[in-house]
Amino acid sequence: MTYTRFTVDSSTPSLWRVTFTNPPINLIDSMMIGELGELFAEVERNQGPAVLVFDSADPDYFLAHYDITAADRSLVDSLPPGPTGFHPWIDLLVRLSKLPAVTISAIRGRARGAGSEFVLACDIRFASRERAVLGQPEVGFGAMPGAGPVSWLPRLVGRGRAFEILLGGEDFYGELAERYGYVNRAIPDDEFETFVDHFVRRVSMFDRQALADIKHFVNKVSLPDDEEFPPQIDAFWEAAARPAMQARTAKAFEEGLQQRSDVELRLGEYVEQFTETVRPLRAETQRRVRADSPKGSGSRGGASTDLWANNKD
Amino acid sequence: MTYTRFTVDSSTPSLWRVTFTNPPINLIDSMMIGELGELFAEVERNQGPAVLVFDSADPDYFLAHYDITAADRSLVDSLPPGPTGFHPWIDLLVRLSKLPAVTISAIRGRARGAGSEFVLACDIRFASRERAVLGQPEVGFGAMPGAGPVSWLPRLVGRGRAFEILLGGEDFYGELAERYGYVNRAIPDDEFETFVDHFVRRVSMFDRQALADIKHFVNKVSLPDDEEFPPQIDAFWEAAARPAMQARTAKAFEEGLQQRSDVELRLGEYVEQFTETVRPLRAETQRRVRADSPKGSGSRGGASTDLWANNKD
Amino acid sequence: MTYTRFTVDSSTPSLWRVTFTNPPINLIDSMMIGELGELFAEVERNQGPAVLVFDSADPDYFLAHYDITAADRSLVDSLPPGPTGFHPWIDLLVRLSKLPAVTISAIRGRARGAGSEFVLACDIRFASRERAVLGQPEVGFGAMPGAGPVSWLPRLVGRGRAFEILLGGEDFYGELAERYGYVNRAIPDDEFETFVDHFVRRVSMFDRQALADIKHFVNKVSLPDDEEFPPQIDAFWEAAARPAMQARTAKAFEEGLQQRSDVELRLGEYVEQFTETVRPLRAETQRRVRADSPKGSGSRGGASTDLWANNKD
Repeated sequence: MTYTRFTVDSSTPSLWRVTFTNPPINLIDSMMIGELGELFAEVERNQGPAVLVFDSADPDYFLAHYDITAADRSLVDSLPPGPTGFHPWIDLLVRLSKLPAVTISAIRGRARGAGSEFVLACDIRFASRERAVLGQPEVGFGAMPGAGPVSWLPRLVGRGRAFEILLGGEDFYGELAERYGYVNRAIPDDEFETFVDHFVRRVSMFDRQALADIKHFVNKVSLPDDEEFPPQIDAFWEAAARPAMQARTAKAFEEGLQQRSDVELRLGEYVEQFTETVRPLRAETQRRVRADSPKGSGSRGGASTDLWANNKD
Repeated sequence: MTYTRFTVDSSTPSLWRVTFTNPPINLIDSMMIGELGELFAEVERNQGPAVLVFDSADPDYFLAHYDITAADRSLVDSLPPGPTGFHPWIDLLVRLSKLPAVTISAIRGRARGAGSEFVLACDIRFASRERAVLGQPEVGFGAMPGAGPVSWLPRLVGRGRAFEILLGGEDFYGELAERYGYVNRAIPDDEFETFVDHFVRRVSMFDRQALADIKHFVNKVSLPDDEEFPPQIDAFWEAAARPAMQARTAKAFEEGLQQRSDVELRLGEYVEQFTETVRPLRAETQRRVRADSPKGSGSRGGASTDLWANNKD
Repeated sequence: MTYTRFTVDSSTPSLWRVTFTNPPINLIDSMMIGELGELFAEVERNQGPAVLVFDSADPDYFLAHYDITAADRSLVDSLPPGPTGFHPWIDLLVRLSKLPAVTISAIRGRARGAGSEFVLACDIRFASRERAVLGQPEVGFGAMPGAGPVSWLPRLVGRGRAFEILLGGEDFYGELAERYGYVNRAIPDDEFETFVDHFVRRVSMFDRQALADIKHFVNKVSLPDDEEFPPQIDAFWEAAARPAMQARTAKAFEEGLQQRSDVELRLGEYVEQFTETVRPLRAETQRRVRADSPKGSGSRGGASTDLWANNKD
């Protein structure tokens, strides 16, 4: 199979390297979700690697975030339902967290929003000390992250730091991400490749059954229940339907969102500006919207037609 | 409403600042418990702020600890039962942990015993690197902490460090408190105010519903069950009824407890001395008391009449 | 009672010090398991100490790992069943984690494999910054650790770091072990004894009932369920029966395993070599063995006769 959003180096059968390459900033779009679904199916067929490592061809962006243009949103909705029956993005992450391979994110550049959700669903997260930037800026747009961070982060970094990451929406650079336990380690960038290469090759040489046993037993005491996720994405779709979020998103696109821009480099700082812009309208519009919007279905998201409409295209 | 134990700055409607000011050392007394109950009721009415930040007017004491004079103990017992039906102090902390506002402790100075219990029930804890001191010295007086630390700390810092904090009863200064995850971060004191101010203003500008959603979902996976708390305070009242604890407390008062004293500045060190004093008597008295003392009721504490009697007044 | 694998200093009734001394490298053998069982029975009779501290007479080895010679394996199997009915080693660790005394490991030197399992079952772990080395190298031999780490580590250090420790099988030196939360703290070696001595004396002077209460309540929210452990040791015995593991172990013995050797000093590095040696044979042999080997009984291990046979003796 040929992939367009990433390359797969499977020259070592026990160790596959997935390198994201979706210019300009490695957005997670419908095509990438579909292709990752294909890739995971290959791995699930159990003829795959012992270790699956994810990295990026772009040193500034690991996975910037979800492509939030309305056009792409519709494409995601048109993807065939995944094995779990959940929304395609949730489906993908649940499967990622249970793959019969050790999954490792080697994070250089930004991994925010859905990019952070992706690395949280991996078994292990290594970060470049100077280049990695993680965060969940959704709160700055008016939503809570919809695909897992409220499940993963409290268990990983503790309740207090999970609240700070999720409620503050700030950027977490490598060193602080390590102190908080958001990533396993932050490694100096000039040693990063050597460190990751050694670790993944090492693990890939170990006994497959031993690796599988460890994953099985650690999952038993630390994997969130699948049922935690659908209500999260419902809450996200509700937020996305609120005028406040649409206004903030529109403002962000004006400033350069989804482009190779300063906004994307320092999104954690910029979200404050988007908030200030739309603040006067907030209280009223929100109240109205909350009353009107019906609960989403839990599997596909609610009213999808008006989400982030006309933001970019 | 006028408060006497703290001031409330609500000039920014979305961001209320509560500044503890109860000289000489910001003890948590019956009046403060009552007043905090009133304040929380205001916030619960949902006309309150998005963010509630707690700080102290005294750079040496955030909240020193519970006022353990017998006279004040009786006053706490005479407070009307709170909404949860638990002991007033447990009731207050359970409500604090569930407030419909983001709660942040900005810790400068000592937060020991009940002061530590208070900050543990907040969503986020920021500490001054040089000035914050946290700890649970109860074990040094002969009791386990009765209002939450045995629930919060293992989940926050892991079982091993929770044991060290609770069994050792030592003082944890800012930097070590951060390394253990007892606080979110320890910030250099000269940057502390700027850092906290920026964070709380930022969060207070975000969408109320998004903040509420995050709190709801993080609580679902990280909030202790209410029923964990009452047996803890029962165990505390049992300890308080033992002669050993009364002897240690008496000794501590002689040395300057509850005053602006070296004992209060370095309580974590002093508890060893109190123990040595009463040690010869310990084994016998304890055994007798254990046999005599009936189990407490779980909501109000057991036999209250002889607790810390005549310690100070 | 006279012990041969460790000394017990009970000159202070409330503080017993257990010093491992089983040359050449403090292996955990059947004799040590039996003797520790006797010691724990003494402590369980409740006439024992408030604090039980474990250290080693050998600055290079705290507890190297399980004695994996077939001869000793048989001796373990011939030990009388412990109170829990589980395999003697699991039985011992479950009892350790519930002793009516505060248990503290003062780790200088290597604590790998079963040595790491031992310290994880203690309440508190202090490590020498320069001399402590922890790790679970089992994966490098072809097995997952069988007695607890998959239960303890995710809860202690979070899922991501637990995976790294267990899947990577590397050595964790004091400082990194602290950053990960694998130990409470790493203390500079020249301050290590003073630090530990002060802490354990301090705790041993505190009220016995208060210590017991803290252990009781912290256990309620952080102790793994006993039933988690037997399936783990079953998975371990299954692995041990596979030819791949026997081949790797044989290679390791050739290189100096269980002796005062460079292999034992840097086992985390050496396991890669053992893997490379046996790799060509791996895929085939494994598949055959998996089909043949019956599930173990959960309490005593499965087919014990062919485990690590003729490795050394």
